[in-house]
Amino acid sequence: MTKKKPLILVTNDDGISAPGIRALISVMKEIGTVVVVAPDSPQSAMGHAITINSTLFINKINIDNDVEQEYSCSGTPVDCVKLAVNEILKQKPDLCVSGINHGSNSSINVIYSGTMSAAVEAGIEGIPAIGFSLLDYDWNADFDAIKRFVRKITLEVLENGLPEGVILNVNFPKLKESEIKGIKVCRQAKAFWMEKFDKRKTPQGKDYYWLTGEFINQDKGEDTDEWALENGYISVVPVQFDLTAHHAIQKLNTYKFNH
Amino acid sequence: MTKKKPLILVTNDDGISAPGIRALISVMKEIGTVVVVAPDSPQSAMGHAITINSTLFINKINIDNDVEQEYSCSGTPVDCVKLAVNEILKQKPDLCVSGINHGSNSSINVIYSGTMSAAVEAGIEGIPAIGFSLLDYDWNADFDAIKRFVRKITLEVLENGLPEGVILNVNFPKLKESEIKGIKVCRQAKAFWMEKFDKRKTPQGKDYYWLTGEFINQDKGEDTDEWALENGYISVVPVQFDLTAHHAIQKLNTYKFNH
Repeated sequence: MTKKKPLILVTNDDGISAPGIRALISVMKEIGTVVVVAPDSPQSAMGHAITINSTLFINKINIDNDVEQEYSCSGTPVDCVKLAVNEILKQKPDLCVSGINHGSNSSINVIYSGTMSAAVEAGIEGIPAIGFSLLDYDWNADFDAIKRFVRKITLEVLENGLPEGVILNVNFPKLKESEIKGIKVCRQAKAFWMEKFDKRKTPQGKDYYWLTGEFINQDKGEDTDEWALENGYISVVPVQFDLTAHHAIQKLNTYKFNH
Repeated sequence: MTKKKPLILVTNDDGISAPGIRALISVMKEIGTVVVVAPDSPQSAMGHAITINSTLFINKINIDNDVEQEYSCSGTPVDCVKLAVNEILKQKPDLCVSGINHGSNSSINVIYSGTMSAAVEAGIEGIPAIGFSLLDYDWNADFDAIKRFVRKITLEVLENGLPEGVILNVNFPKLKESEIKGIKVCRQAKAFWMEKFDKRKTPQGKDYYWLTGEFINQDKGEDTDEWALENGYISVVPVQFDLTAHHAIQKLNTYKFNH
């Protein structure tokens, strides 16, 4: 008996030619039938943006000769997933993987991340989905060091599925393969960005701003993704799209909204 | 004894000149000192996008004569909140309100919504925050019908604060004031969009797509925002930015990631 090869949708937010997605594709090609639908330009920090006030274009392209199908898309990462499922594949893939992101999507970064939003969109559509990110913003980051772990996590998810409404947010420390201590299931650390804006002047003398900032983690828990990453582990956080703060409902029912 | 007037930051995603934000400003002016920082153009469905690969501009403008300060910003709703707190106010406001959105942000819409992402960003920064949306996409929607409730919810939040890490997602049914039955604290319904793409051709013969879709709610719970809205209530959903699916951690620890 041979098992049917799984159909795997690959996307990202750094754009279809980024080394991170090329590394992810190379791992997925060994596991299943790969269809790539990814943005034609970098879409980092796009969050869960979708294109509703503009048109979308899809181009069939060919970067790696032996990938079954590759498409670049003019939209956001979430647009890519919607177009892939509804227009290109016209069926649900068995898995959607997003990344490998150049840079961290741990803790609060999950909420700004185009990589994770693409994975979450797949999750909303009922497709098991994983976002992968490496804590190295360098375009030439060493993705080879983590390929073995990407493969292992992917195979486990294909084997076991994922709980309903759950997507995996996987982050890799910037370490040599031999230095990585293992894989830890974690919660999202309570961290945030302390923004700073770099104020400059245009040649015409008008003020403008660049967003910069400092990452602040005051969460000392040893069950967080930040702790895992700082201590040489790969972090796996189960993420959900039910944003309800269920624990707060009882408290809010004491407010006098109807008086 | 007189209480100090609260400092209220007002933003939205439909743009600073939208009737929805003008209605929200008119309510807030009766409650506190109002500073408006809102996008200079429509930013619907921008999710939690931020501008990291481009510059940001702020323009001091004057639409309503008696608003203390008004600024339009070239960025996303989340950029507006970050710029307001860090560059314009240089202090945390006592409250951030976002909207009133022209159209629903109930159930899964919360994740695509620029209105709610602005409120969530304020929440991340430790500011009590509320997003308001009216289930009417019309530019000339009747915001007067809901002003009384916007005021009541705002005053309750100023009086009691909000639980840590919780933001309110408030949606109003499209009804006359006298038809609204009251305010219900709810959970986010498990609903989703069944996408459809409208495929067209450019004058040059190239295919392009418009995103459309149908909203599907299979959640029959009477404790959901969709139920409340369909039954004449205003829905209030407490929203959180800890996306961890805590209930899934135990299950994932049975996966053989490290074998």
